[in-house]
Amino acid sequence: MKNGKLQNYIAYVDGKFVPQTEAKISIYDSALMFGDMVFEMMRTFNHEHFLLDEHLERLYAGMKFLKIPEPMSRLEMKKLYNETMEKNADFFDEKEEMRPLINVSRGILPIYQDVYGQALKPNLVISVFPLRWTIGATYPNYLNGISMYVASQRAIPADLLEPKVKNRSRMHYQLANLEMREIGPHAWALLLDTDGFIAEGTGSNIFLVKNGKIYTPEGRNVLRGITRRYVMSLAEELKISCEEKNLNVYDLYQADEAFVTSTPYCIVPVTKINGVAIGNGKPGPMVTKLLDFWNKKVGVDIVGQVKYYSETGTQSSSNPFVELKR
Amino acid sequence: MKNGKLQNYIAYVDGKFVPQTEAKISIYDSALMFGDMVFEMMRTFNHEHFLLDEHLERLYAGMKFLKIPEPMSRLEMKKLYNETMEKNADFFDEKEEMRPLINVSRGILPIYQDVYGQALKPNLVISVFPLRWTIGATYPNYLNGISMYVASQRAIPADLLEPKVKNRSRMHYQLANLEMREIGPHAWALLLDTDGFIAEGTGSNIFLVKNGKIYTPEGRNVLRGITRRYVMSLAEELKISCEEKNLNVYDLYQADEAFVTSTPYCIVPVTKINGVAIGNGKPGPMVTKLLDFWNKKVGVDIVGQVKYYSETGTQSSSNPFVELKR
Amino acid sequence: MKNGKLQNYIAYVDGKFVPQTEAKISIYDSALMFGDMVFEMMRTFNHEHFLLDEHLERLYAGMKFLKIPEPMSRLEMKKLYNETMEKNADFFDEKEEMRPLINVSRGILPIYQDVYGQALKPNLVISVFPLRWTIGATYPNYLNGISMYVASQRAIPADLLEPKVKNRSRMHYQLANLEMREIGPHAWALLLDTDGFIAEGTGSNIFLVKNGKIYTPEGRNVLRGITRRYVMSLAEELKISCEEKNLNVYDLYQADEAFVTSTPYCIVPVTKINGVAIGNGKPGPMVTKLLDFWNKKVGVDIVGQVKYYSETGTQSSSNPFVELKR
Amino acid sequence: MKNGKLQNYIAYVDGKFVPQTEAKISIYDSALMFGDMVFEMMRTFNHEHFLLDEHLERLYAGMKFLKIPEPMSRLEMKKLYNETMEKNADFFDEKEEMRPLINVSRGILPIYQDVYGQALKPNLVISVFPLRWTIGATYPNYLNGISMYVASQRAIPADLLEPKVKNRSRMHYQLANLEMREIGPHAWALLLDTDGFIAEGTGSNIFLVKNGKIYTPEGRNVLRGITRRYVMSLAEELKISCEEKNLNVYDLYQADEAFVTSTPYCIVPVTKINGVAIGNGKPGPMVTKLLDFWNKKVGVDIVGQVKYYSETGTQSSSNPFVELKR
Amino acid sequence: MKNGKLQNYIAYVDGKFVPQTEAKISIYDSALMFGDMVFEMMRTFNHEHFLLDEHLERLYAGMKFLKIPEPMSRLEMKKLYNETMEKNADFFDEKEEMRPLINVSRGILPIYQDVYGQALKPNLVISVFPLRWTIGATYPNYLNGISMYVASQRAIPADLLEPKVKNRSRMHYQLANLEMREIGPHAWALLLDTDGFIAEGTGSNIFLVKNGKIYTPEGRNVLRGITRRYVMSLAEELKISCEEKNLNVYDLYQADEAFVTSTPYCIVPVTKINGVAIGNGKPGPMVTKLLDFWNKKVGVDIVGQVKYYSETGTQSSSNPFVELKR
Amino acid sequence: MKNGKLQNYIAYVDGKFVPQTEAKISIYDSALMFGDMVFEMMRTFNHEHFLLDEHLERLYAGMKFLKIPEPMSRLEMKKLYNETMEKNADFFDEKEEMRPLINVSRGILPIYQDVYGQALKPNLVISVFPLRWTIGATYPNYLNGISMYVASQRAIPADLLEPKVKNRSRMHYQLANLEMREIGPHAWALLLDTDGFIAEGTGSNIFLVKNGKIYTPEGRNVLRGITRRYVMSLAEELKISCEEKNLNVYDLYQADEAFVTSTPYCIVPVTKINGVAIGNGKPGPMVTKLLDFWNKKVGVDIVGQVKYYSETGTQSSSNPFVELKR
Repeated sequence: MKNGKLQNYIAYVDGKFVPQTEAKISIYDSALMFGDMVFEMMRTFNHEHFLLDEHLERLYAGMKFLKIPEPMSRLEMKKLYNETMEKNADFFDEKEEMRPLINVSRGILPIYQDVYGQALKPNLVISVFPLRWTIGATYPNYLNGISMYVASQRAIPADLLEPKVKNRSRMHYQLANLEMREIGPHAWALLLDTDGFIAEGTGSNIFLVKNGKIYTPEGRNVLRGITRRYVMSLAEELKISCEEKNLNVYDLYQADEAFVTSTPYCIVPVTKINGVAIGNGKPGPMVTKLLDFWNKKVGVDIVGQVKYYSETGTQSSSNPFVELKR
Repeated sequence: MKNGKLQNYIAYVDGKFVPQTEAKISIYDSALMFGDMVFEMMRTFNHEHFLLDEHLERLYAGMKFLKIPEPMSRLEMKKLYNETMEKNADFFDEKEEMRPLINVSRGILPIYQDVYGQALKPNLVISVFPLRWTIGATYPNYLNGISMYVASQRAIPADLLEPKVKNRSRMHYQLANLEMREIGPHAWALLLDTDGFIAEGTGSNIFLVKNGKIYTPEGRNVLRGITRRYVMSLAEELKISCEEKNLNVYDLYQADEAFVTSTPYCIVPVTKINGVAIGNGKPGPMVTKLLDFWNKKVGVDIVGQVKYYSETGTQSSSNPFVELKR
Repeated sequence: MKNGKLQNYIAYVDGKFVPQTEAKISIYDSALMFGDMVFEMMRTFNHEHFLLDEHLERLYAGMKFLKIPEPMSRLEMKKLYNETMEKNADFFDEKEEMRPLINVSRGILPIYQDVYGQALKPNLVISVFPLRWTIGATYPNYLNGISMYVASQRAIPADLLEPKVKNRSRMHYQLANLEMREIGPHAWALLLDTDGFIAEGTGSNIFLVKNGKIYTPEGRNVLRGITRRYVMSLAEELKISCEEKNLNVYDLYQADEAFVTSTPYCIVPVTKINGVAIGNGKPGPMVTKLLDFWNKKVGVDIVGQVKYYSETGTQSSSNPFVELKR
Repeated sequence: MKNGKLQNYIAYVDGKFVPQTEAKISIYDSALMFGDMVFEMMRTFNHEHFLLDEHLERLYAGMKFLKIPEPMSRLEMKKLYNETMEKNADFFDEKEEMRPLINVSRGILPIYQDVYGQALKPNLVISVFPLRWTIGATYPNYLNGISMYVASQRAIPADLLEPKVKNRSRMHYQLANLEMREIGPHAWALLLDTDGFIAEGTGSNIFLVKNGKIYTPEGRNVLRGITRRYVMSLAEELKISCEEKNLNVYDLYQADEAFVTSTPYCIVPVTKINGVAIGNGKPGPMVTKLLDFWNKKVGVDIVGQVKYYSETGTQSSSNPFVELKR
Repeated sequence: MKNGKLQNYIAYVDGKFVPQTEAKISIYDSALMFGDMVFEMMRTFNHEHFLLDEHLERLYAGMKFLKIPEPMSRLEMKKLYNETMEKNADFFDEKEEMRPLINVSRGILPIYQDVYGQALKPNLVISVFPLRWTIGATYPNYLNGISMYVASQRAIPADLLEPKVKNRSRMHYQLANLEMREIGPHAWALLLDTDGFIAEGTGSNIFLVKNGKIYTPEGRNVLRGITRRYVMSLAEELKISCEEKNLNVYDLYQADEAFVTSTPYCIVPVTKINGVAIGNGKPGPMVTKLLDFWNKKVGVDIVGQVKYYSETGTQSSSNPFVELKR
Repeated sequence: MKNGKLQNYIAYVDGKFVPQTEAKISIYDSALMFGDMVFEMMRTFNHEHFLLDEHLERLYAGMKFLKIPEPMSRLEMKKLYNETMEKNADFFDEKEEMRPLINVSRGILPIYQDVYGQALKPNLVISVFPLRWTIGATYPNYLNGISMYVASQRAIPADLLEPKVKNRSRMHYQLANLEMREIGPHAWALLLDTDGFIAEGTGSNIFLVKNGKIYTPEGRNVLRGITRRYVMSLAEELKISCEEKNLNVYDLYQADEAFVTSTPYCIVPVTKINGVAIGNGKPGPMVTKLLDFWNKKVGVDIVGQVKYYSETGTQSSSNPFVELKR
């Protein structure tokens, strides 16, 4: 990786290209007043932007739900996105993948519009940094699986705060992560919804495998992850049954296998729940099957790439929440 | 008012004094990732900072609950706050009051710490602007009272997202405001909690008056406003019974009077609920009594000041949410 | 009692005085379409209309909440009420008490207004019949107390259907009564609210006595009975503590005494809950104390009067719901 | 239409045929005491009574659930129904359709049985009036679609008040309609259930279309409309997937199309939710496809008929709830 | 039956074989402190232990969930189970079937470990007695069906107390049974969950039949009975649709047939709900079909066997809860 | 302490005095079938049985609620209790305190009554052992305070399983304890109720102190501890305000002091919540004040006694749940 400093990367911020350390939002912006911002984070495989249209579709769906005016058409935004990526192209050699980010906020609160000296309009930020920063230290997760614990923090029901809108008003995820600090650096949070069903991780969707079939919570009180949907389509192609269903923690105890999905990590095995082994306590064959198929689809050895990053230095840890404990 | 542009005001941001248009937060800050920021907004009476210690106490309570490390001691912060106010003193002649703001976020996410080129630490912003910007157009509210409507959006219960912590993860307030847009510019949102009790406005506490006694919702699924507590203390001094109680919308329909409280507005009468008059549909004697007593305490004619602002030009509207409809 | 047939009594119906068998409502009236009607039922003591103003106040409060236009002023209605009573005066000798009734519905649905041949307006019915019809067979209840059973039917929470508005949309009371039929003619329904607290009977409020203090459920998911409030005022005069409180069924099991209140019955002891004796299983001293005081206030021996009715023939049974089982 | 006055139409009421202005219920009837009445409203296509057996089945199911004794066998009732229709046949020329209505209540309350001068028995009313009165002004709804808003009023859960029983204890529907008055005459109420899922309109079922598939809420906290089931059967014949599913408001925002169903209107497009366009904001191809198929089935141009009614005079408005605002 | 006294049967208790009257647990055992014990009860057909592996699987699943250490491997337990059966073989002639029982508790509480004079370890009990004792008096149930009533006691949600773990902390089942005592000896309890859906009986699963299809509640707030699953597999083999679904009490009222399942009883028809006939109020053809098929599978006339027990003397009643009323 | 082995102590079991290792319950007892047993555990001060009448009162209240027949009158039981204590008197020198225990179960299930060879009757066990066994290792708790963590396990609401009845169906307490094992041996479980309010520890009541006033959760979803009530009476005597109130976890974070109460421990300070210091993180003056007053009342230095036990050997640990992790 040529470049380890954020300031060298270029971001599009509200009409201009600037160093990413200048990618900032006014404290008078609705984003900082209410968590009133939608966003998407993507990744590449061999520099191909993976499922970009799906991410943009969800971004515009979120703006519609929150009634944030569209800063530009979807086509124009895609063009601007590509332009931003090109400006950063030199920082990514063929071994590096990109981790792009789009933020859209409603902009400066109306109350400040006259004094702010600019028209009232939504605020768009596009940036990118190396995927390595996010996943570089996570190789052990693929080898051993991660350990999840049911947090006392519950997921907020969709009629109170819609998790299907990828928004920034989600202090409760942070609080669940902070709970895990008390258990230890190995612990990942699992949220139940207020009905007592398994909902999601704090940034990932969960699946379990029982008797050769895959199950995942109904897309109700969870972010409907784009990776979640992709894994469902992989299963369909592989003729593996994959069903959305109300799941109890009991079902996870009795599962043969479990895994979480997210854009940067793709698929990570879960091998323990509340300190007890799931199945034989080791990553299982379904994860391997799905990852192998995925590797073929995108022409990248997903886990191999993580291993390479881990061997060539990185800046993060296997559990991104561990440093919260300072 | 000497100065109508934000850029002329000075803010303390992360160690430096800068023009307020530079009061910005990195998109990699936890504040913008999770709504993970606590804040306080104050006001002055005759340039005296009103209940500043109470605001600081709540700010530190929020940091403790969210486990945000304290950026400095409470004493040091107060000193810095005063320093910031002094730097802006010239912009406030004797007729103008200040509207100061303190933000504390957890800072850059750990995942970006190595690349961001700075140590991992909480982020502090202190700023101030004229109170006139917030309340200058609200004179009609005091004359006629405001009209509240029960939103379909409910307050989020305290065990899911603690409203007593004044934090920035509150998209649901914004959604309730957006609902009101459909009713009209005169409509203010009233949130019920998930038990069906009256909770709060989106930034104010609510009180009702019945047979000479004052009632307000229990301090449970609401922000425990500092003005709310102050009004309770005024009532106590005036020997008026003021009780925290579970209240239904029915109680509001049957009330003799109702009002909301907040730091910038102090006390604003509520004269309609869901389109129906409360009492005789006019501001009532209890509001007058409380405001008169408050005026005496702080040596300012609160409503008179708002009238003056409205007659001398301002930048906001009587309902700060009306411009949301652009 | 001079007169045992309904047809002899006169009712005011929508502008005219008619025999009570003609006191009818169109099937196109909102009352019959939605249960969209408010009502009050009163009683007299020595022909004095007891707490009439309080009943009228609640009637008008209900109209306000349901946005039913007022058919006339409160004063005019009182006049019309008295006029209706006078027209029936001959049927009530000095031993008989009256059981008057006021109904107000929104009137014919707008959809039928053009074809119905009359202006769109609320519909008012005032009628009266002998109290004896309601309470004449209930003397055993005062002697032995009644037996209540927790129904599987729960009270509907106030934010879904406001029980404090005395309205006709209350099929759930009927369903609770129908449940009791399966236990036997001695069984009276006790409703819990959805929080699991004791709410009310199907037409009565409940109180319990423990260590000399009286407790009754908070006025939340219940009709705030006018007799309930009157009993609270009696207690206050007698310097007996009477507190509104969240009560569990457990509290009723552990009570020393319990009783229900309603307009026609005044106070009836409850001596069993779910088949188990409350206290010593007999009517207790608190009921006697309250009734004695009440007797003095109104100059009527309340229980003696019921005894007299029972000895002189009546048309109802001790449990008005038993005949449901036909 | 020959006849615009209700009094000319004949109703069967409790054993007699009378002018419909005499179709009335005693104030001592359980229907007016508790909303304790079941009913069905039908319509014809070319004078054929559509799905009459299904309506009668649901009517008898409701009586069973509420334990209202059957006033006669289903066969006898059908005979009486037909007789009533024949008595009104002259009022319906070939362009007019009928809107029949059956009401069954439990009858006079037992407490009044001795004095009422008649045996205790359920009360049956059968009537009919022109469909034009209901739908004559609704042509714009088919052209432009209707606009729905999520009401703050929630649907009452089935375990508290069973919506699958078509009964008259439904003040909460009226309250939701009254909420819409505050938004404007264009607004139709959409009820969520207490789990936050989409339930129903106040008298209609809702469907959405996404990627060529149809979805409707599970038949749980809703009236299981006969038109709802018919539309599901149309979809099945047309080989279009139609699934019952828990749906969030988010799903409606993201739908390609939406529509409501009810007996008189058949299918009406929904083109806006909370003020935001669904799909392209216009009635979509699925509604057309279903209506075309339905037209063929019944030999009536459903929308054409509504258009004809609108052009030849009518008594109702496009939103039957608008006149509520008087 | 050779032997009518419990003391003659042999039980394995904590390492020893003893008379069953000695099958006891210390009051200091976690089982008696917290209801902290998992168990299984089996039955034989022609002395073949039916679905034993499935029962053992569920037993070990419960231990895992409750984190009770396994006292031995599943294979060892099976061996010990068989050994226990053999020791009792003489008491079972060819007409008698066995009713075996396995209990595993966590053992003596740690606090007592030093004083108790034995190592801290889980406690295992295996016993067996004649099936006749459980089902010998239940022949009328098969002939006439049983009558179920919705209890006011609700099922405890799975996230509060997991019903899928067959454990001994279930006072609430007992409380539901005690409610039924008040209705009469014919009444069996039906539990709703807190969402208002049908959950289960107090020791049985419930199914309903509508239009030739079978439905049973989702396996969520219920014990997932081994007989429940077996009946689902019988239906599958018979090509009868059998679906898990959220069911309301309304669905039971409208069902053509209903039945409950449990290990000792297999399948018992339910012919009344809340006092109202289901279908024609008689056991229906689906129960016959399933039982016939089951008979063939196991080579036993299930109902015939119960009839035989009833004719040759027994010790229980048709409703095992009736004696609760002593 | 003369005697460290359980077998030397004498218990009353079902009519006989036996060594305590024989204090056992049949597996066919309702206690082991349903957790269907009520109990009380007492303690002495200077060999005086503390609040024995209050414990007996609660025991009989529980029997009444669960409809367990009383095995004898309260007076007879007290006599038997004293007799049992006398039989064990020799084992308690003047430095030792007693920890007596009473268990009452419903007895053998009716289904087994004929075969069990004994009449169907409730089962009574009375035993006693040294208090030292329970509290001997807890001296550090008084010195440093304990650390509580909010468990993901919630308290079961009173309408589902009444916590005010001290019964044995409480696997959920055990599950909360097992959660704490994952955090560490220092962690004590704090249960919230399903409304999100603080309920209780798993065997203790919780109090907090703020501005010199004491608060404790309403006696609703908690065991109403006898020590809880005693502490409230101490506060009253000391003229310290002590209020029952709905409390959020936030309130605990902001408290000046907190403590738990239980019969054996009396009062133990809580100095951390979720890893964060309460107040200054040290036992506070209110605990000292209350304990000092208590010491005077009973003539025992409560903490000094614990210190003595810890210095003279004991069998338990400071957290009785730590050994769960074996």
